[in-house]
Formats: sequence, structure tokens, C-alpha cells
Amino acid sequence: MDIPAYKIALIVGAGEGLSASLARLFAREKIRVALAARKIEKLGALCSETGARAYPCDATNPEEVERLFGLVEREIGPPDVVVYNASARARGPLVDLVPADVQQAIAVSAFGGFLVAQQAAQRMLPNKQGAILFTGASASVKGYAQSAPFAMGKFALRGLAQSMARELSPQGIHVAHFVIDGGIRSAARQDPAERPDSLLDPDAIAASYWSVLQQPRSAWSWEVEVRPWVETF
Amino acid sequence: MDIPAYKIALIVGAGEGLSASLARLFAREKIRVALAARKIEKLGALCSETGARAYPCDATNPEEVERLFGLVEREIGPPDVVVYNASARARGPLVDLVPADVQQAIAVSAFGGFLVAQQAAQRMLPNKQGAILFTGASASVKGYAQSAPFAMGKFALRGLAQSMARELSPQGIHVAHFVIDGGIRSAARQDPAERPDSLLDPDAIAASYWSVLQQPRSAWSWEVEVRPWVETF
Amino acid sequence: MDIPAYKIALIVGAGEGLSASLARLFAREKIRVALAARKIEKLGALCSETGARAYPCDATNPEEVERLFGLVEREIGPPDVVVYNASARARGPLVDLVPADVQQAIAVSAFGGFLVAQQAAQRMLPNKQGAILFTGASASVKGYAQSAPFAMGKFALRGLAQSMARELSPQGIHVAHFVIDGGIRSAARQDPAERPDSLLDPDAIAASYWSVLQQPRSAWSWEVEVRPWVETF
Amino acid sequence: MDIPAYKIALIVGAGEGLSASLARLFAREKIRVALAARKIEKLGALCSETGARAYPCDATNPEEVERLFGLVEREIGPPDVVVYNASARARGPLVDLVPADVQQAIAVSAFGGFLVAQQAAQRMLPNKQGAILFTGASASVKGYAQSAPFAMGKFALRGLAQSMARELSPQGIHVAHFVIDGGIRSAARQDPAERPDSLLDPDAIAASYWSVLQQPRSAWSWEVEVRPWVETF
Repeated sequence: MDIPAYKIALIVGAGEGLSASLARLFAREKIRVALAARKIEKLGALCSETGARAYPCDATNPEEVERLFGLVEREIGPPDVVVYNASARARGPLVDLVPADVQQAIAVSAFGGFLVAQQAAQRMLPNKQGAILFTGASASVKGYAQSAPFAMGKFALRGLAQSMARELSPQGIHVAHFVIDGGIRSAARQDPAERPDSLLDPDAIAASYWSVLQQPRSAWSWEVEVRPWVETF
Repeated sequence: MDIPAYKIALIVGAGEGLSASLARLFAREKIRVALAARKIEKLGALCSETGARAYPCDATNPEEVERLFGLVEREIGPPDVVVYNASARARGPLVDLVPADVQQAIAVSAFGGFLVAQQAAQRMLPNKQGAILFTGASASVKGYAQSAPFAMGKFALRGLAQSMARELSPQGIHVAHFVIDGGIRSAARQDPAERPDSLLDPDAIAASYWSVLQQPRSAWSWEVEVRPWVETF
Repeated sequence: MDIPAYKIALIVGAGEGLSASLARLFAREKIRVALAARKIEKLGALCSETGARAYPCDATNPEEVERLFGLVEREIGPPDVVVYNASARARGPLVDLVPADVQQAIAVSAFGGFLVAQQAAQRMLPNKQGAILFTGASASVKGYAQSAPFAMGKFALRGLAQSMARELSPQGIHVAHFVIDGGIRSAARQDPAERPDSLLDPDAIAASYWSVLQQPRSAWSWEVEVRPWVETF
Repeated sequence: MDIPAYKIALIVGAGEGLSASLARLFAREKIRVALAARKIEKLGALCSETGARAYPCDATNPEEVERLFGLVEREIGPPDVVVYNASARARGPLVDLVPADVQQAIAVSAFGGFLVAQQAAQRMLPNKQGAILFTGASASVKGYAQSAPFAMGKFALRGLAQSMARELSPQGIHVAHFVIDGGIRSAARQDPAERPDSLLDPDAIAASYWSVLQQPRSAWSWEVEVRPWVETF
């Protein structure tokens, strides 16, 4: 049973929640980590803690994404694990939504995912090895009222992931999509006392990403849903 | 059993296939028809035949879509059936896709659908009546290899439709999404002799759209799949 | 566009709701109707009204189902439309369910569907024509808490329908599965005044079955969901 | 992050493939193992190797299943991990299937799953802790031609799992369903040389079961699909 041995991870759309948990987990597993975000000031402490390097990047801009991968490659090496974590939403009654916000929500949640995945695949295919992971949400599989832009972006990202899984898996690239079905625990958002563990612990989500990364190629998952024990679905 | 009585239809992304069949069917049912397309020269014969009026419109442009609805409203009346039929694709290995083409594919297949649906809903909600129909494809529910942009656009359109169905149905607007699972018969593309009816007859698809439009509100479909009898799925 | 012309319908699991609406609709369309149910006393008025003939049959018993088809064939002719409408459920906490009730729920909802469909297919295949329709429920696609037996039966029936659609469609048999997502209006169960049309009108459901039966084979649906406009899903 | 610590596992439908891999993995993790199968002669070597105890049981018989749990409880202790692995199929054209075989396929694949899960839940609920895992197949989510009985059984089992997940998760029981999408490697069935790892390694599947068992309750999966890298889906 050949378990893949990944060496360099790039997390795009890095912030304080899930991506911080992933960065810490990767660091513990001796994987070097690059973080990308529109604004990287907030990433200082995480970089100190994990040895990660941060890169500013607007993931919806093809040139910036290409430059990001060039920089990471030069400074750390070609990433063999790439996580796309960025998303944006615009909420409200359909008739009140501002078209530019809708366009932006789709660009951040889905088009940026394409740009990042394309750069990642270009670097992984020559080695026939690597993993590209996408972070989805309940909205990836269910379009909620008053939340069309988020559904559009997340459905599109899932379509991308599924198409890539069919195309790239037989070339040795593990493509996986995660449906995070619930709110994520954070400094700002804690479980109510009467409902312990009703928010997803970001370390627990990261552990599920890791177990997918540890799958040998004879038994790959392309989609995994995780939700709190008390979440209705 | 109250069957809705629609009066004015607008088909966006009109061409020679399904939309022509819909225009003819609507005309037979005494529904006045407006057709919108990027280029309307090709629509001349259909307009003559059905009494439809054609409007040039780039469905990915918010101002043009708004102007389209204003014009149709002034010249024919507010549409109570709106069909979004436009789509674009870019095929090829993921690593070879041109980002601008991917962006355009998502814009035509999904963002244009949002723009059109928003204008439609604004006009229908005051009357608590109307229908908004979206044309999907196999790629709406399955992401195929080497076809990520089409999957992204069509998945996103389905997310939009599902979100709108949840939001607008209780306000009297029937939102429906069709999964056309197979090739459509056309002048240029005919069934092979040994496989009769292996391509979807556009008149048959139109008939299914019509039966959804005839559903009383106590039993609405939000999604209908149609495929040729010999299609594997 | 060749619309199928059906002549003889058999409805198994006939009662007062949807099957009565179907019987009336078929009669209006000059289709001769046979009704089967465990107890046929209740079907007297419907038979008088529609000219249908009633047959007692336990659909979970292979011999009785075979005899039913033999009788219908002799007395009316071989059915070219067969509807399977029977279902049974057992509700309650999983740990309190009685195994015999669970077994019976699966037998009525699913195994009976197989028995009926098999007899139907045997008679339709030589003519390469016919339609077999299955009545599903929300529980066909979503397993609810405290309702495992109904989910088991309805999921199984959907698996049967899908397998049959793949196998028999290319042989000319239209197999369709309906997801009835909501309560059905009846003499005993009426819409609350403040929520008109919040229960499915059985005539409206029957109209959707009919529109599927009218589909030419180049554009068949194998599954159609119907739900009231105000139903959350 | 509280990772569950399971102590006693019962695998029903034990044979030489996946269940042997699970038994070995559980043994390595210091979990005591009980194996149940219709015939236990074949389980001798596995028991010697893992220290497991084997119990004969027809999983479709309510009394035998109840007795099985009683025995395991007395001789080893109440199981806090229960895996349902049994399944049966009958293949062939729908019209040629023997009703008794269809009934048996449903009984083994699904009804037995209910019987086992019910006994398991009765023992786990008082402690508000435990895990019940179901082994599904491609046929759990897609009904293939000429394979209706397997689809019926596996769809039904998935309906059971989903209903139980909704009911029992909030009571502390982790219910998970695995979709094994492909053939499993065995002594009798090896990867063709030109397609390495095109069959699922049972140890790799077992590792995915284990990672689900290690999930803290704030981020549980109820369904996980695994398939070989080269499997089309």
C-alpha cells in the first residue's frame, strides 16, 4: 500500500480558520507550507509558528496566480499539495443583488479555483503525482434561498473538481472536494454551551483532509462531506 | 386545478434549435414571443413564421440585459415566461485552457442567467405569477473530463435555479431547470439510420417545457431530465 | 414526433387518491383501465365511474401477481401502461421497530414493484412498446429520522426503476419514477385556509404522469419530482 | 479534539476481503474483534491471526441476529463498532430473474443491515457512543442494467444508513456509509499488469473506514466514496 509522501503545500485563500489548522498539520508532517491571500498582514503569526511563507495574491487574476506559482516554485519548490480555500458570497433577495457582487462572488469562489488548479496541474503532471483539494460548503450541493451567488460559485467549483477528478486522476493527480456542512468554530464563534461540538472544529476538518491525502491511489475519494453530529441535513 | 395562463414569453439565447421549437410552440398557444440573441440576423425567418420580435443583447452585460427587458416591456409587455438558453463552452485538457475563455464560458452559461432571471423576477414578483426556465445539460450534474468550463457554467446555473426555486416558488414564480442529456437533432446533425431517435427532437424537448408550464402550483417540478431512449446515463 | 398511443392501463396499489385521478384521466383518454389492490371493495364507485375493472391482488406474492396479469390479459388485454403505486411504512425510533413490520414495508414498497414490473416487462418487450411508472416519495431520495423502513422501501424502488430504465429503455419500454414531495390532498386532508395549494392535488400529479407518457422516445424523462409551490426541499 | 476510543468491533458478513483487512487493522489498534458469517469454517486462519472470535449467524434472521449480539456481549463485551458487510446479488435480464432470488438479495443486502443496526443501536444508545458502518457499492447510487436486485438491496441499505444518520448522530452514534466504487483486489483477482492499482486494495479501504472512525463528533462524515485512480465514474 503506497501512501503518497507530499513535500510542499500551497494554501490559497489562507486565513485564520481551516487554513491555519491545515498549515499547522502540514508543518507537523514535515511538509513545507506556502500561504497565499489577498492581504497577508494577518498571516504573520501563523508563518512564525509554522515556518510557512506568505504571498500576496488576488486569486481571480490570471497573471497574479501565475506569478504566485513561479515565486513559490523558486523560493520553496513546486507544490505537490494545493488547497483552494477562497470563497466569497453576496446574500439577499435575488432582486436586490448587485450584479458586480455576484460576478465577484463567482470569480472568487470558482474562477480563482480554476486558475490555481491549472497552475498546480501544470507542475504536477510531469511527475504524475500531486493532490489538489477544494473546500466546498453545504451550498455546493444545495442552493439556498437568498444566497444564489454563493450557490453559483460553490456549485461551479464542484463542477470543476469533478471534471478534474475524471481527467487528472488517471494521470496520478488526486483531486478531492470537501463539503463542509456547517459553521466552523473560531475565536469569534464558539459552540453554545448547550450544544457542544455543534460547530466544526477546524483541526478536525484538517484531519479529514489529511486522511484523504494519505489514501493510496487504489482507493481515492473525490468527495468527502463533514458535518457536526447535531447538524440536520 | 388552476393551470397558469401565460401571455408573453422571452427567450434569451435564441437560435435555431430548441428555442425555435419553443417559439413555434408558444406562438401556437397564443403567447407573444420575444427573442434575444447576440446576433439577430439569423432570427429573421423564425420571426416571420411566429410573429416573434428579435432583440440584440449580450446577456453577460448587466446594462444590455436591463435595456432588453425595458424594450420588451414597452413594445410587447412584461414577459411572464422567461427562458434562459444561452451557453458557451471551452474544451480541452485543463492545462491548455485559456483563462479568458473559461471566464467567458462561465459568464455566458451562468452569470447571464442570473442577470436575465433577476430582471424577470423583478417584473413577475409584483403579480406573484410567472415562470423562469433554465436550459441545462448533462454537464449540469456531471463534470466531464476536458470540459471543466462547461461544467462550471452549467453547475453554477443549476445552483442559481435551485436557490431561486427555494426563494421564489413560495412567491408564486415557477422556477424550473431542465437537464438535456444528449445531443439535439438539427439540420446539421441527424440521427444515424441504425439508431433512430438517438438525438433529442427539439420539438419533443419543447413539449416537456410546455408540460412544466402547465403544472398547477400544487405540483410543480423544479427539475426535469430528458434523454433519448438509447442514451446511456 | 411520434407520441405513444397507449390502450390498456393497469394500476397496482389502487386507492382513492392519485390512482383514482389516474384512472379518470386514462378513461378520458380512452385507455381501458384495470385496478389492483389487496381489497377491492372500496373501488366500486371508481369502477362505475371510469369503466375500470378491479382485481384483488397481494402485490408481494409472486403467484398472485402472475395470476393478476394473466387475468387482466384475458379479460381486457395486455396492459401497455403499468403504474406501481403501493407502499407501506413503519414509523418510530429505530430501536423500537418490529422486524416483521420492516420486512413487510420493504416487501410492499419495493419487492411488489419488482414483481409487477417483471410481469409487465414480459408482456411489453415482444412489442418493444409500453410504459412502467413508479410512484416514489420524498423518502425515495432522503432518509428521514424515525422512518427507516419507508426510506428502505422507497430507495429500493428507485434503484429498481433506475436499473430498469437503463436496461429496458433501449428496448422501447419507457420506465419513469416520480418523486412526490409533499402530502397529497384528499377528502380527509385539505389545505389549511392560509396555505392554499400546499397539498398536492392528485389530478395535478396525474397530469404530470400523463405528460411523461406523452413524451416521444427521443426525449424521455426517467425521473420527475413534483412538489407544492410552498414546500421547502 | 476528542477522538473516539473504540474497544470492541463486530463485523457481520465477514469473509476474506475487506472484512479481513478491517479485522487486522482493528487488532493492531487493540480493538477486540468478533466476526459473524453464515459459515465460519473459512474464518479460522483470520481468527488465529487476529485473536478474533467467529460466530455463525444468518443475518436475515431476527432471532439469530439477536442471539449473535447476546453472545458477543457475553463473551467479549458490547460492541461499540459494528460493520455491516454482507450483500447478495442476482444478475440477469429483468424478465429472467427468479423472485425468490430477488427477495433473498434484498434480505441479505438490506434487511440484515437493519437487524444488525437495530441490535447495535440498542447497545450503543445508553452510552451515547458507538459507530455503525455500512459497506455500499457503486450500485448504492446508480442502478445498473441487468442488476436490479443488487441495486434494490444497496439503495435500500443507503436509505437505512441515511435515516439512521439523521436519527442517531445527535444521540452520539456515528453512522457512516461507504460507496466502494470498483472491484476489490483479492487472491483470486489481481490488477492487470498494464493497469496497476486498478482494483481497490482492501487494506486501503479499511484505512478509510478507520479514518472515519477517528473523526471527532464535530466533523463526522456520513458517506465516503472510494474508487481506484483509473476508475471512470
